[in-house]
Amino acid sequence: MSTSVPNLESPVAQAPTGNLELTVSRAELLRELTAAQSVVERKTTIPILSNFLFEATEDGKLTITATDLDQSLRTSCTAKVKKPGACTIPARKLYDYIKLLPEGDISIKLMDNHWVQIRAGRSNTKMVGMARANFPQVPEFPASGAFKISVPSLKGMIAKTIFAISNEESRYTLNGALLVIKAESMAMVATDGHRLAHVEKLGETIEGVSGEKKTLIPRKALAELSSLLGSTEADTLEFGDDEQTLFFKVGGRVLTSRKLTGQFPNYEAVLPRDNNKFVIVRSEDLMGCIQRVAQFADERSGAIKIRLEQNELKLSSSSTDAGESEDTIETPYNYDPLVVGFNSQYLIDFLKAIGTQGEVRLEFKDAQSAGQMRPEDGNEDVKYRYILMPMRI
Amino acid sequence: MSTSVPNLESPVAQAPTGNLELTVSRAELLRELTAAQSVVERKTTIPILSNFLFEATEDGKLTITATDLDQSLRTSCTAKVKKPGACTIPARKLYDYIKLLPEGDISIKLMDNHWVQIRAGRSNTKMVGMARANFPQVPEFPASGAFKISVPSLKGMIAKTIFAISNEESRYTLNGALLVIKAESMAMVATDGHRLAHVEKLGETIEGVSGEKKTLIPRKALAELSSLLGSTEADTLEFGDDEQTLFFKVGGRVLTSRKLTGQFPNYEAVLPRDNNKFVIVRSEDLMGCIQRVAQFADERSGAIKIRLEQNELKLSSSSTDAGESEDTIETPYNYDPLVVGFNSQYLIDFLKAIGTQGEVRLEFKDAQSAGQMRPEDGNEDVKYRYILMPMRI
Repeated sequence: MSTSVPNLESPVAQAPTGNLELTVSRAELLRELTAAQSVVERKTTIPILSNFLFEATEDGKLTITATDLDQSLRTSCTAKVKKPGACTIPARKLYDYIKLLPEGDISIKLMDNHWVQIRAGRSNTKMVGMARANFPQVPEFPASGAFKISVPSLKGMIAKTIFAISNEESRYTLNGALLVIKAESMAMVATDGHRLAHVEKLGETIEGVSGEKKTLIPRKALAELSSLLGSTEADTLEFGDDEQTLFFKVGGRVLTSRKLTGQFPNYEAVLPRDNNKFVIVRSEDLMGCIQRVAQFADERSGAIKIRLEQNELKLSSSSTDAGESEDTIETPYNYDPLVVGFNSQYLIDFLKAIGTQGEVRLEFKDAQSAGQMRPEDGNEDVKYRYILMPMRI
Repeated sequence: MSTSVPNLESPVAQAPTGNLELTVSRAELLRELTAAQSVVERKTTIPILSNFLFEATEDGKLTITATDLDQSLRTSCTAKVKKPGACTIPARKLYDYIKLLPEGDISIKLMDNHWVQIRAGRSNTKMVGMARANFPQVPEFPASGAFKISVPSLKGMIAKTIFAISNEESRYTLNGALLVIKAESMAMVATDGHRLAHVEKLGETIEGVSGEKKTLIPRKALAELSSLLGSTEADTLEFGDDEQTLFFKVGGRVLTSRKLTGQFPNYEAVLPRDNNKFVIVRSEDLMGCIQRVAQFADERSGAIKIRLEQNELKLSSSSTDAGESEDTIETPYNYDPLVVGFNSQYLIDFLKAIGTQGEVRLEFKDAQSAGQMRPEDGNEDVKYRYILMPMRI
């Protein structure tokens, strides 16, 4: 059953290579597999990448590694290690199988020809693995230069920006969000050229930072990181990098991501400075109106019209196929009347990010200039703004 | 905006045709639209079929009709009818829009060119409808000859058989389940040629039946009916038919379905009579074992092996790609050893239908003969059996 695959990078020479044999609790194993399986590429042309690497060491530790060559995740749990060693196991099959087993102990044993035996209770399965030597080497967390970052702060910043990252693969430098770390603040910014989300967290003391450290984090890594941050109980994570790779250590898990190269656009130039016509409405009301009106927007553009008049915010849309729709919110407004068009989905994205509990402030200059949205939540520590280019309607 | 479509059948001459105008509560309207929208074809090439027909009469009733020509559903609710009349409204758009409106009253008014105005609170929408005359005529519930059937009994019978209906469109007469009504019992049977589900409910008194009434009900109608039965508070439904059409009246709703023509196979011939080797196991245990072992079955056939030996039920599978798996359940068994193969998905389908609470009895003759499964629940009124053809393994 031995399968020959290209040796992608030189294998780790010092890693255990014996005939792994161990027992692990199903709950612990499942928890770590759940964390690692999302890194595994579903449709890879390189067979070894659909496998987990299992490494068991004498100190009673099972380390599980998954990689798609762009990213890797390394996690571990305690195990009764009878024989230290290493093996690879088809990731999807193993994960599905372990999910279906009842609670209890699971024995894992490397057999001949890279087959791996999984036993639990009266269940006995042999899975077809591949040679450990074929598993690519994953980058090691750098020995120095890492920063400690607050878990809730980073998690919040990702949720507030990730949706604005460009989906166009050709716009390479827009396929991630820019993390800006200073000694006393952090900021994250993402844009797709049509809208821009910017969040700044003040009052964060980050040790070891001099000046400003800017890092472009790919969207895939942000998504993975967000899920790691969601399942950890740790307060801080460690963030480091070397020339090619970003590293995030969350609890016992290490996520790596290949860096995006290139220059993130000069976003500070597009932040509006004189949007002095504004209106404040309940987020929930605005969300309801936009969702209704958006149903009758032109399907391709998704454009809806915002009309501000004396104490009134009017939303409207029309499409030749579906009809036309209008919704009105009463709210104080005493500036000059204004009509401006926006992509309804972009408005909805932001309202989802801030939630529908509080109020939102909409700031405009004129129909040709970018609009700005901000949560009206009185949170002085988090400055969150969302800039949208207007549409001709 | 008038769109010309073929007039599919002659329109109902006596139906209201005025400029409908009414007010209806959002909750009531949404409830009826929810019931009716599943009949609307998503991808129809006949535009009028993606519309609802709305008919308002002077007695304060709004009737909503949906049809895909094979099926129709007619439902109604109370409304304040200002002007009786009729109009058609794009079904999907209307349903989505009404879902997004807050609770309250909704005004609906037919305008020029088949446009329909929908107003609620400060929301105002105009949708592009089509001429009422283009909406196909829907069959009327027959004046006589209908039976009263118990809602829970029919609902249970559908759930116990629908999954065994054939998915192959070419096997025309297997694309439905056969309902057999007698004066004191009902039965339903479905098969795809590889497995057969048969359920009989005794102790049902059905008035007006002499002898045996056999009706083939298409799968789509069964699915629709199942959802209607699930949302009604009525104890009985009325079931009738004419030459071309089946009718089901559930509460105030009438579902019609074009009949399937052709002869349902003589299923009684395949019911096993001498499967005298049997074993009884907990459904939950069996489900777990099958799901685990099925992961390593040949992907195309899904075949797993059942091996019965002294007080043991063994399940196993193997595939060249994935590996091999085995699971064992201890349970009394004292007949001759037996090895027989089955499609794992068919086994799972039945276990899902009976739920994982109780026990299940597996009855066999030999490796070449059909196996039979039955819930071991001591329910004398419901006779439920499931017959599976063996597979060569």
